[in-house]
Amino acid sequence: MDNWLPSLITPTPSEGYDLAVKLARIAVKKTQPDAAIRDKLRKDYEADADALIAVSHVVAIHFATIAAANDHWRAVK
Amino acid sequence: MDNWLPSLITPTPSEGYDLAVKLARIAVKKTQPDAAIRDKLRKDYEADADALIAVSHVVAIHFATIAAANDHWRAVK
Amino acid sequence: MDNWLPSLITPTPSEGYDLAVKLARIAVKKTQPDAAIRDKLRKDYEADADALIAVSHVVAIHFATIAAANDHWRAVK
Amino acid sequence: MDNWLPSLITPTPSEGYDLAVKLARIAVKKTQPDAAIRDKLRKDYEADADALIAVSHVVAIHFATIAAANDHWRAVK
Amino acid sequence: MDNWLPSLITPTPSEGYDLAVKLARIAVKKTQPDAAIRDKLRKDYEADADALIAVSHVVAIHFATIAAANDHWRAVK
Amino acid sequence: MDNWLPSLITPTPSEGYDLAVKLARIAVKKTQPDAAIRDKLRKDYEADADALIAVSHVVAIHFATIAAANDHWRAVK
Repeated sequence: MDNWLPSLITPTPSEGYDLAVKLARIAVKKTQPDAAIRDKLRKDYEADADALIAVSHVVAIHFATIAAANDHWRAVK
Repeated sequence: MDNWLPSLITPTPSEGYDLAVKLARIAVKKTQPDAAIRDKLRKDYEADADALIAVSHVVAIHFATIAAANDHWRAVK
Repeated sequence: MDNWLPSLITPTPSEGYDLAVKLARIAVKKTQPDAAIRDKLRKDYEADADALIAVSHVVAIHFATIAAANDHWRAVK
Repeated sequence: MDNWLPSLITPTPSEGYDLAVKLARIAVKKTQPDAAIRDKLRKDYEADADALIAVSHVVAIHFATIAAANDHWRAVK
Repeated sequence: MDNWLPSLITPTPSEGYDLAVKLARIAVKKTQPDAAIRDKLRKDYEADADALIAVSHVVAIHFATIAAANDHWRAVK
Repeated sequence: MDNWLPSLITPTPSEGYDLAVKLARIAVKKTQPDAAIRDKLRKDYEADADALIAVSHVVAIHFATIAAANDHWRAVK
């Protein structure tokens, strides 16, 4: 995972949002490096409303950071 | 979902709030792409006070980001 | 609910706080539009310490946004 | 509770922190206006570690807002 | 606890982090002033992963505030 | 743990993210100094989806702070 995140800059807000989703997942990966366990857990939380809202919460924080990095894409037309 | 979010700019705070609601939902959609499962989960959390407050929490974070993007709509009269 | 939020500007911090309470409630309303269900849920969470603290949490985030919009009411005497 | 919050400005960080504690409590009061119920709930959460940490969380957010309002008291000596 | 927090300025990020830990604890102290009860609760949450992560969460918010107060210690070499 | 955090500046966002993971862990360490208990708790939360999402949440807040400290690495090419 060497330099997996070269930049927070994205051309559009949509791509910034996708990057936020990615950032939310990476912390899980770094805390639980075993992909088999993660796949098992994913089955649990994918069907759990509380967990999905919690994931959305983390994405929201990362999106705020990425939006700030991109000056909220104000210059994008 | 190509470029579903072209901009964070909205004419009014009300529309900015609606966009925040949308952003909160998109992360759920990206984590659980199956619409049938999401519909089932929606029935659960729509009648659960804790889940509704949690959704409101995520909306609040996105609204902060969108408000910043719009310079808090200070120029809107 | 057309343009229910014309501005984030309030004359005083007290009114900004009231607006934050309102913003926290609107997301619940938009997620659960049935007023009868919301009234029932309200009876639950009004008597639940955890839920009340969670509501206070959402209010705090909206208050931060509104305070920033009002330049923290620094010019108010 | 007319204009109970005339300003976010405090002379010191300590007083700013006390104001943050107050702001965290006001939302509870506005959501559950019955003082007798609040007193009963207070007995519950005062002896519950999770609830105390949750209260501390809300205080932290308000403290961030108040600190920003006071320019982080950088000029205080 | 008169003026227990004279300033948010710390020489290094490490000391800023320690101050954040302190700020997270003070709200608990102000909500539950009885030291004996707090000591009992501490035994509970010290051995509970969820509670420890929740404490870390509150510390993170205070650290953000303190880092901003110190201009992120950018001038520290 | 003397001056374990000399700076928030990192060459790349990837390294900033790693620092955020570290900051999230330190608060746990400072609250539960016993490494044997922490190792036991780690086994619990590593296999718990809710706990992993909660960890990711704390990382997101620290990452926001570190990104701000690094001016969002805008100058990194």
